[in-house]
Amino acid sequence: DRLVLQYGATQGFVGFREALAGFLSQRYGAEVRAEQLALSGAVSLSLGLLADVFGRRRGLVACEDPTYFLARGIFDSAGLRSFGVPIDDEGLNVEALRARIEAGEVPDFVYLIPTFQNPSGSVMSEARRGALLALAEAHDFVVIADEPYNLLHFEGARAPLPLAMHPAAGDRVVSVSSFTKILAPGLRTGWWQASPAMLERALGHGVLRSGGNLNPVMAQMLLPLIEGGFLARNVDATRELLASRCAAMCDAIRSELPGARFVEPPGGYFLWVDFGAGVDARALRRAAKAHGVAFTEGKRCAVDAAFPSTARLSFAFYEVDEIREGVARIAAALAGLG
Amino acid sequence: DRLVLQYGATQGFVGFREALAGFLSQRYGAEVRAEQLALSGAVSLSLGLLADVFGRRRGLVACEDPTYFLARGIFDSAGLRSFGVPIDDEGLNVEALRARIEAGEVPDFVYLIPTFQNPSGSVMSEARRGALLALAEAHDFVVIADEPYNLLHFEGARAPLPLAMHPAAGDRVVSVSSFTKILAPGLRTGWWQASPAMLERALGHGVLRSGGNLNPVMAQMLLPLIEGGFLARNVDATRELLASRCAAMCDAIRSELPGARFVEPPGGYFLWVDFGAGVDARALRRAAKAHGVAFTEGKRCAVDAAFPSTARLSFAFYEVDEIREGVARIAAALAGLG
Repeated sequence: DRLVLQYGATQGFVGFREALAGFLSQRYGAEVRAEQLALSGAVSLSLGLLADVFGRRRGLVACEDPTYFLARGIFDSAGLRSFGVPIDDEGLNVEALRARIEAGEVPDFVYLIPTFQNPSGSVMSEARRGALLALAEAHDFVVIADEPYNLLHFEGARAPLPLAMHPAAGDRVVSVSSFTKILAPGLRTGWWQASPAMLERALGHGVLRSGGNLNPVMAQMLLPLIEGGFLARNVDATRELLASRCAAMCDAIRSELPGARFVEPPGGYFLWVDFGAGVDARALRRAAKAHGVAFTEGKRCAVDAAFPSTARLSFAFYEVDEIREGVARIAAALAGLG
Repeated sequence: DRLVLQYGATQGFVGFREALAGFLSQRYGAEVRAEQLALSGAVSLSLGLLADVFGRRRGLVACEDPTYFLARGIFDSAGLRSFGVPIDDEGLNVEALRARIEAGEVPDFVYLIPTFQNPSGSVMSEARRGALLALAEAHDFVVIADEPYNLLHFEGARAPLPLAMHPAAGDRVVSVSSFTKILAPGLRTGWWQASPAMLERALGHGVLRSGGNLNPVMAQMLLPLIEGGFLARNVDATRELLASRCAAMCDAIRSELPGARFVEPPGGYFLWVDFGAGVDARALRRAAKAHGVAFTEGKRCAVDAAFPSTARLSFAFYEVDEIREGVARIAAALAGLG
């Protein structure tokens, strides 16, 4: 179809959105409609565009603390100021956010990663989800949920639904996802899920009004991978691979780094480890580098907090043997610091 | 190469940039080096990213008046305020810009379309280019040049070089272009040309630091079209097609709309026509619509000016016969307004 090479419908071709909606409905076990989806770029670009659309009232964003370490740079580039809200094993501490809001800091939007959080691996509880959405309604702010890992659960039938599918989401939530973690990063293609009214606002960005859809040709190329079942098979294979790598990393930490504290993540890419009070994660990172292994310091994921003794470890890229070797080298580096 | 599917080098693969540099060097008759190029999205997206990087000092942009009618929406979304600077047959009126600056309105950047301007079709003169760059140096602002039409000249050996290649460009100019007008809009892929220092600043955008290159897989798909000569042949075929369509439109206007004033454009997509004092272009557009033909009112391209009796006509999309019929219908609509 030569029209695919023209400027694309801003929301994305309906045929692509219908195929994606069918795929997601099947994976989520809940109906996703094509009208609730917009084809977009990968998550980083989506966050930049959504920050522009939803961040111009007061220029203020609330982020989980810790959060994805490069998200704050995206909001900085959009000209927004960020503040951090603590998280725990149940996700965002909504009462801490409420206190900030009652002290006058009402964000334009809350940015969070509710499922298999980056960097902590945690999953936001249903109670917290409901409380956050009630707070958003009470104080008239938007929620931008970064949800690239939702299909990558290790246990149980499925992860919680995207926040945009929550019964209380209304016209306040955009869930952002992409093919990066379930197919390949280089595709730079993803989607937004929201109510049609919310999508209409989001698609009002000047870049989209000018250029139309961000990836019409790539979408057309991905369509047979969705319709032919390759994507579904690849998601299951990826889940299995990630689960085995996560288990290997957790086992290795328990045996090689007995003083470290962490919660075994039920899905996703990351594990958040606290090496213990008194360990300087920056010094450990330098020492580990000399042993030929790298990790992301907890401090890099911080918004307002410090996280001096923590790190984000990724189990996504390397083979099980490499993961075991990497943890052993971190343990050797830690022993050398003593 | 499986690495193509990974996050791409932010500036784009060096092999792609070398091939593009070779192609552009040949077309421009002047050396473009791979280090002066960054692979990016199409122009709309590029403008959004560059507006973020270069527009955060005072939040002020100077635009040609008239300008590309959807550019201001991009700057609005980035949170910037725009003001207009008049243009004439030699491009931006640099003295008018100087007066605004001396009155205290120093822009963070000037946005302009120096070659085959949208909507006017004009080409900025060498004298004006030099004067603008001297003004930029004196008042420390950046110039973002939107240059998607440079290879689409109808007469002579070639159009002026991109503004980033001007001897006085220094580290102040980014020229933005894309494959939209020379291959297909749906590819949503383009490039920035600038000094390496300027590119480094531009590539510091949070979206790019997070997501890497915007289109690595698409670039790899375009590479054989550049290396195999298809792109060069397509550019020449496109030039020939556009030249014949432009000539047909100009002839039709001269014969059907003898009261209209316009300058025959030497390249590009657009022609700017003044139907004459007293003609209400909005009323004419409505009447023309009833005759089954559409055009962009001059007013839509305005920043601060009015342009009540003008229109932007595009000769890019339709066949010669359709163009003649379209102009005849506008003439009939105009006669009906009488």
